[in-house]
Amino acid sequence: MTFAELWAELLPVGRNEGTGGYRRFSWTEADAACRAWFARTATQLGLRTDYDRNGNLWAWWGRPGGEQAVVTGSHLDSVPDGGAYDGPLGVVSAFAAISQLRSDGFRPARPIGVAAFTEEEGARFGVACLGSRLMTGAITPVAAAGLRDSDGLTLRDAMVAAGRDASDIGADEELLAGIGAYVELHIEQGRALADLGAPVAVADGIWPHGRWRIDFAGQADHAGTTRLADRRDPMLPYAATVLAARAAAESCGALATFGKVVAEPGAANAISSSVRAWLDARAPDQATLTELVSQIWAAAQDAASQHGVDVRQQRESVTPPVSFDRGLSDRLAGALRGAGLDVPVLPTGAGHDAGVLAARIPAAMLFVRNPSGVSHSPAEHAEMADCEAGVAALTAVLADLAAQ
Amino acid sequence: MTFAELWAELLPVGRNEGTGGYRRFSWTEADAACRAWFARTATQLGLRTDYDRNGNLWAWWGRPGGEQAVVTGSHLDSVPDGGAYDGPLGVVSAFAAISQLRSDGFRPARPIGVAAFTEEEGARFGVACLGSRLMTGAITPVAAAGLRDSDGLTLRDAMVAAGRDASDIGADEELLAGIGAYVELHIEQGRALADLGAPVAVADGIWPHGRWRIDFAGQADHAGTTRLADRRDPMLPYAATVLAARAAAESCGALATFGKVVAEPGAANAISSSVRAWLDARAPDQATLTELVSQIWAAAQDAASQHGVDVRQQRESVTPPVSFDRGLSDRLAGALRGAGLDVPVLPTGAGHDAGVLAARIPAAMLFVRNPSGVSHSPAEHAEMADCEAGVAALTAVLADLAAQ
Repeated sequence: MTFAELWAELLPVGRNEGTGGYRRFSWTEADAACRAWFARTATQLGLRTDYDRNGNLWAWWGRPGGEQAVVTGSHLDSVPDGGAYDGPLGVVSAFAAISQLRSDGFRPARPIGVAAFTEEEGARFGVACLGSRLMTGAITPVAAAGLRDSDGLTLRDAMVAAGRDASDIGADEELLAGIGAYVELHIEQGRALADLGAPVAVADGIWPHGRWRIDFAGQADHAGTTRLADRRDPMLPYAATVLAARAAAESCGALATFGKVVAEPGAANAISSSVRAWLDARAPDQATLTELVSQIWAAAQDAASQHGVDVRQQRESVTPPVSFDRGLSDRLAGALRGAGLDVPVLPTGAGHDAGVLAARIPAAMLFVRNPSGVSHSPAEHAEMADCEAGVAALTAVLADLAAQ
Repeated sequence: MTFAELWAELLPVGRNEGTGGYRRFSWTEADAACRAWFARTATQLGLRTDYDRNGNLWAWWGRPGGEQAVVTGSHLDSVPDGGAYDGPLGVVSAFAAISQLRSDGFRPARPIGVAAFTEEEGARFGVACLGSRLMTGAITPVAAAGLRDSDGLTLRDAMVAAGRDASDIGADEELLAGIGAYVELHIEQGRALADLGAPVAVADGIWPHGRWRIDFAGQADHAGTTRLADRRDPMLPYAATVLAARAAAESCGALATFGKVVAEPGAANAISSSVRAWLDARAPDQATLTELVSQIWAAAQDAASQHGVDVRQQRESVTPPVSFDRGLSDRLAGALRGAGLDVPVLPTGAGHDAGVLAARIPAAMLFVRNPSGVSHSPAEHAEMADCEAGVAALTAVLADLAAQ
């Protein structure tokens, strides 16, 4: 099976025809359709499929448990109206690479696994990389089981509704012990490769990053009769915080974004009782991230107190900086040079399951060129030739890592 | 039936036990329960109930069409998580006043009507005073029929789903021609009466006010990988516009509020593709309102262009200044003085059906003291003694107007 064939099969699943974007939220109908595609494809390739205790999907060439396995993969879930490539490109490329290895008559000396991690985007339950965090113990089963989606359903409810057993989620030491390396291929989510004129890169590391919820609590009131001086309008300190976050990010050489905001009660003719907002902050190093967030928080507190509004923050997820395994990354670069590909090395501000797994097992990443740099949008795109270059790179890497 | 008895019956209908607020949106189940209460109460008082062509509810003492009727009433719908008083106080007081007139053996010389106008808050379809606007021709049937709620249902769909005929909505000249005066009793939505130490006031007029939707359209993108300089983030000009609106309102001696905002796609780790926001603006006179809105719009355009964001505005509803009928208001004040009540005269920034009707028929309003001034909130409150003072005032007014 070629990359193009596999890609065409998955492309329509969970696509919103109105926006052209994807709403593949974990444990929904669209997610179930993606998982069915995964199982069908794995079976066609002669791979054995399996769920782990945390709902992550696996396909195995060879039986794990003996020689340490080489695992590749990514995720199938999306942000709301996300693009087609973020996640699925790594899973489809994994299957295409295995198909190529089969055609080449390759005989792996160790098991090769394909993983699709659950809730990588955190779009339903608010914690990014939830499946890999559970597997590695980066989040406790108790904390995860209590997460709720916007309808108030818990992760446990959602897993049970999707027919999964949620009673045994948590760190999976046996599974981790059987994995010698994890290599994730992903579309680049910026323009660095486009600027360099290269189709594929090896990742260097991931910026530390995190998500903070900031709750501004004021007083609901009538928009037409409440004097300005009598108002406790939480929208005003929220707005001041958005602008302060941008200024702080500029001065720190970092990134800060408010992409999600909920005003209650949400009536055009009522002053809000509360504004809940989510800050996404990223920086080249931990000290800068800490400085960035503390500047934004100081601005939020200052603006809130000017308007008689209460403000609280809650850290929802924080990922420390990740340096991918140097030995593994060097070996990837060597294998790619051996296959005639000279690939650059790039850092990224995006979190990935590979970054979570890197805390427990050697992990590395390959990036595929994104000509516009646009991601988390229906406009996200990669050229077919670049996707095929990614598959060729991943094939060479798997052949190298699984040969001995 | 006393005010307290009638009030206790309506109080639980449509209340959200989580917030203590009301979600009585037009043509929903909660609205149907309010309408059932209205019909039951009217029947108990010996009044004949009726729907007009636009879905507004009526109860009649005497048959309209001969002598010009005296109509009182208000609305039963609420903003999201609104208070118990805004709207229902006028309807309950109307029934309580009629009950009192019946007990007093009063024989009206002209019909007395009680009206409950539909969608006064505009909380479902976005146009405030929709029922009275339709009845008076202030909105065309075509424009109204095409309005949609947040689920995409049209007004027509919603009326039909609630069992009403929506084929004949529009200006109701026959009904208007039969009404000689409309007097609406309403809870005050500010603190003026509390400051004056008076339980009841006669309204002077309504500030001109309106609602504008402002759409900021940018580019969805990944929050972790898109350089600040490459962003077209619509949240930034939105935030600047919120702050500019407050500053403009201060400098104009007016009011401006953003209480409703929708960011799409609404993911914490994605830059928004669009931010839609609703501006509520009010001012003492039309020239000031125009100046206020043009200052805010200029700020929105300026901020949008700084961030490479497109911005559009759409006027959703605008109500010109209303001066209530001087003769009718003077007569109200005279009747109240005759009943031993000396009432102040107050302007207001809030829109009301009485303001819409004032364009076609003599209209006036009574306000009942609101000790905190809070409205459009579960904390909205009036003391029982003040509600009873309102009923006594309305009883005196109806007895005066319907006596000849």
